[in-house]
Amino acid sequence: MDALHVKWFEELLGVENVYADKAHLLAYSYDATRTTYEPDLVLFPRHEADVQAILRYCNTHRIIITPRGAGSGFTGGALPSNGGIILALEKHMNKILEIDMENMVAVVEPGVINMDLQRAVEAKGLFYPPDPASEEYSTLGGNVAENAGGMRAAKYGITKDYVMALRAVLPNGEAIGAGKRTIKDVAGYNVAGILIASEGTLGIITQITLKLIAKPKLKQTAMGIFPSVKDAMNAVYKTMAAGVTPVAMEFLDNLTIRAVEQKYAKGLPVDAGAILITDVDGNLDEEITTQLVTIEAMFLANGCTSFKRANTAEEAKELWFARRNASPSITVYGSKKLNEDITVPRSKLPELLDVINAIAQKYEVKVPCFGHTGDGNVHTNVMVDGTNPEELEKGHKAIKEIFQATVDLGGTLSGEHGIGLSKAPYMTMAFTEGEMELFRSIKRAFDPNNILNPFKMGL
Amino acid sequence: MDALHVKWFEELLGVENVYADKAHLLAYSYDATRTTYEPDLVLFPRHEADVQAILRYCNTHRIIITPRGAGSGFTGGALPSNGGIILALEKHMNKILEIDMENMVAVVEPGVINMDLQRAVEAKGLFYPPDPASEEYSTLGGNVAENAGGMRAAKYGITKDYVMALRAVLPNGEAIGAGKRTIKDVAGYNVAGILIASEGTLGIITQITLKLIAKPKLKQTAMGIFPSVKDAMNAVYKTMAAGVTPVAMEFLDNLTIRAVEQKYAKGLPVDAGAILITDVDGNLDEEITTQLVTIEAMFLANGCTSFKRANTAEEAKELWFARRNASPSITVYGSKKLNEDITVPRSKLPELLDVINAIAQKYEVKVPCFGHTGDGNVHTNVMVDGTNPEELEKGHKAIKEIFQATVDLGGTLSGEHGIGLSKAPYMTMAFTEGEMELFRSIKRAFDPNNILNPFKMGL
Ligand SMILES: Cc1cc2nc3c(=O)[nH]c(=O)nc-3n(C[C@H](O)[C@H](O)[C@H](O)COP(=O)(O)OP(=O)(O)OC[C@H]3O[C@@H](n4cnc5c(N)ncnc54)[C@H](O)[C@@H]3O)c2cc1C
Ligand SMILES: Cc1cc2nc3c(=O)[nH]c(=O)nc-3n(C[C@H](O)[C@H](O)[C@H](O)COP(=O)(O)OP(=O)(O)OC[C@H]3O[C@@H](n4cnc5c(N)ncnc54)[C@H](O)[C@@H]3O)c2cc1C
Repeated sequence: MDALHVKWFEELLGVENVYADKAHLLAYSYDATRTTYEPDLVLFPRHEADVQAILRYCNTHRIIITPRGAGSGFTGGALPSNGGIILALEKHMNKILEIDMENMVAVVEPGVINMDLQRAVEAKGLFYPPDPASEEYSTLGGNVAENAGGMRAAKYGITKDYVMALRAVLPNGEAIGAGKRTIKDVAGYNVAGILIASEGTLGIITQITLKLIAKPKLKQTAMGIFPSVKDAMNAVYKTMAAGVTPVAMEFLDNLTIRAVEQKYAKGLPVDAGAILITDVDGNLDEEITTQLVTIEAMFLANGCTSFKRANTAEEAKELWFARRNASPSITVYGSKKLNEDITVPRSKLPELLDVINAIAQKYEVKVPCFGHTGDGNVHTNVMVDGTNPEELEKGHKAIKEIFQATVDLGGTLSGEHGIGLSKAPYMTMAFTEGEMELFRSIKRAFDPNNILNPFKMGL
Repeated sequence: MDALHVKWFEELLGVENVYADKAHLLAYSYDATRTTYEPDLVLFPRHEADVQAILRYCNTHRIIITPRGAGSGFTGGALPSNGGIILALEKHMNKILEIDMENMVAVVEPGVINMDLQRAVEAKGLFYPPDPASEEYSTLGGNVAENAGGMRAAKYGITKDYVMALRAVLPNGEAIGAGKRTIKDVAGYNVAGILIASEGTLGIITQITLKLIAKPKLKQTAMGIFPSVKDAMNAVYKTMAAGVTPVAMEFLDNLTIRAVEQKYAKGLPVDAGAILITDVDGNLDEEITTQLVTIEAMFLANGCTSFKRANTAEEAKELWFARRNASPSITVYGSKKLNEDITVPRSKLPELLDVINAIAQKYEVKVPCFGHTGDGNVHTNVMVDGTNPEELEKGHKAIKEIFQATVDLGGTLSGEHGIGLSKAPYMTMAFTEGEMELFRSIKRAFDPNNILNPFKMGL
């Protein structure tokens, strides 16, 4: 980075908010993909006005800039793959500005950690449902930029369902508001809607207004064991069709069950085809009971061989153990995990898992699957020996076929992790040239000089 | 319209699908604003391919084209205010293509009437919640293009909350898909999100995939009478903050109550400051009861002088009578109704209604208000003598001040009816120049030649 630029940023932000030294650049060169790209500079804006000044300057001087929350993204969105500046929002812009009890709304800066908001609002009897597994460190800005999902999505939806309004700074330095602290707002184009899941390519989110709901008073957990994944998947969508919307409905396949058992020896049913773990909630005992009665009936009618309800919080934790530890356990099958978060219409899950099984056999790789069946989102993990280039190649071929199968079944490349760099090569599999061209036009409308997180999402 | 163009369209669609005669042009020259603009031609496409061919042709020849559903819009969106073609989607493109029980999804053409879908899915035990008062004739394409709301929005949200995927034809004739039949999808920009509420200015919606939910088994209605609007508004947001989310929470102010009473002599409390009418639903008797207990308690704690529950469907209908007949009744105050659907954060409703009252006094006009308090949406009706230009002018001045007050209270110009032509002059009151410029850039990204419903929304 030109010394004159660095000086300009130091004058704007103070030297303490400009990092140009090797050690710090390294610290901001990674995300959860474990790929690294070193930025030329890291900047810590203190407020929206800083973000405006920085973008205006970058736009004038054509300096590439990439926003970053906690760097927990799974697809390389926060990686400065074309060099330039990392704009790190977690250091200063991390305040909960307001919890408005009357309207049940929270206003936050983008660097607030998801769980910090959850805790703050629950202390007041309110509830912020989106709970990505990264909730303890990922930022709400990153959640909005990726439209993060979580365990509670089946019933409560995802980040986008809670964003009422955003403030953002456009690449030209203009600060805009989008949306209102109202449930309904149809004035002007839905700019907030397109900033959500835009992966830091259209604008820098500087303020988020989130809808809160009343915290449900009761919750109960249950688990079902199934002879096959197909039976489990059938049980899921029949439960939902029967009018029960569980908070969470998570599954583990046989490979995943075995992996957790191998690592933790919990007495899991290693011959089962699948386990389903579900949470229901409500405000009345009877609500909980009737939901569980329906779930049990639907499970048993669809091959479930054992159904267990948790009677205490301790038991619930025990039922959730296998799911919570699925991700770290499956490394027993290979040092490198090529994990994707494909999503298909719920009814297509059995077919998808059949196809994945066939692909795994074809390429002789293990593909443990688990995830959010309640919303059709499968975490597919192609496990390979990361030090073996041949295996890696097989793994990538398998992934490609899995993506194709997903698209063929009416599904999407990504339910929650985004496209970023990792899935960029597959975009043309899912979108027509006309659709890609529209994405590019939208990108140009926001960022004519292509300075903001360019070339991500296959654009 | 050039005869050569007409011929080309006749060859494409058949003469029966091209109207160029005066009588027919008149029939497609209006919407619910009662303003009229005559189109030069009316076309009835039979399927997406027709829409593509028409748009490609119009784009090449720079012919302006405006999509139209049922023409029930309240802001002139479907009016051909700059001439050109009306693309009428209600004649052929009106089929329910699929009701997918397994995924609880409906796929429809844009010309399907809202209520036809509601009936079709309810016959299968499912539920499509968005219920604009125009449900018996407005089309789902129009609902999506305006992001229509309805009585059930407080609990179930609005049109956008049910759109999973769209197909649309862009001004260049390209047909695109946006979104998937999945609950989560973060691949690519949220194009469906920006087409919703775009008022036919970005693309022609040719297919809509809608989320359905299980139909709640039970519903009950209640009504509360309040000495003042302020008390009623306080009761509303305190009820919601107490964790009850009623399906509907509608209000009538004193002027509206008197108007209905004057017209129908139902024995309404003509001295009341406000009436609140509410529906709660659920699957268990106890759920209904506990909700109503909380509502009654919150109402009584906030000045409610009389609380009534409906014990039969007949009684419920009776309680709803005043609200259902509010709109036609208030014409007792003036032949011309300047009605707006401003929306503010729920807690600001009392303040907003105070300001409206002051503005009404200042301009010596009657402004009966009613609407969806559950979501902060007030139907504000400035009543004037339509034949008196002086009164009309006063009315418009009052409207302008009401808009300003709404914006100052953090509200929006429109909760559900859109901007179209009617509210276009007020856009700069609500948006900064930078925000307006972003809207224009988005419009250009989709429609570089400005052929699709141009100059609407103040763009
Ligand atoms: C162990 C683990 C579990 C996870 N579980 C889930 C899960 O359950 N569900 C799920 O959806 N994801 C999950 N993730 C992925 C990740 O946590 C989410 O994508 C999260 O939203 C990223 O937030 P972040 O603050 O880390 O963003 P980053 O990784 O820093 O950035 C992500 C993207 O957002 C952009 N961005 C960040 N801040 C802003 C801003 N203020 N304005 C504009 N753009 C911005 C970046 O440029 C980048 O493109 C998980 C990750 C890990 C490591
Ligand atoms: C008595 C009455 C009550 C009403 N109650 C409500 C209410 O409770 N809530 C509410 O939200 N609204 C209400 N409205 C307003 C109106 O019904 C809605 O805006 C409705 O969504 C319009 O649908 P339509 O088919 O009539 O669309 P039109 O009026 O024909 O068109 C509306 C807009 O959508 C565009 N459009 C139509 N079809 C397409 C398409 N396929 N692709 C792209 N653009 C398209 C048009 O260009 C236009 O800009 C009411 C109207 C009346 C007359």
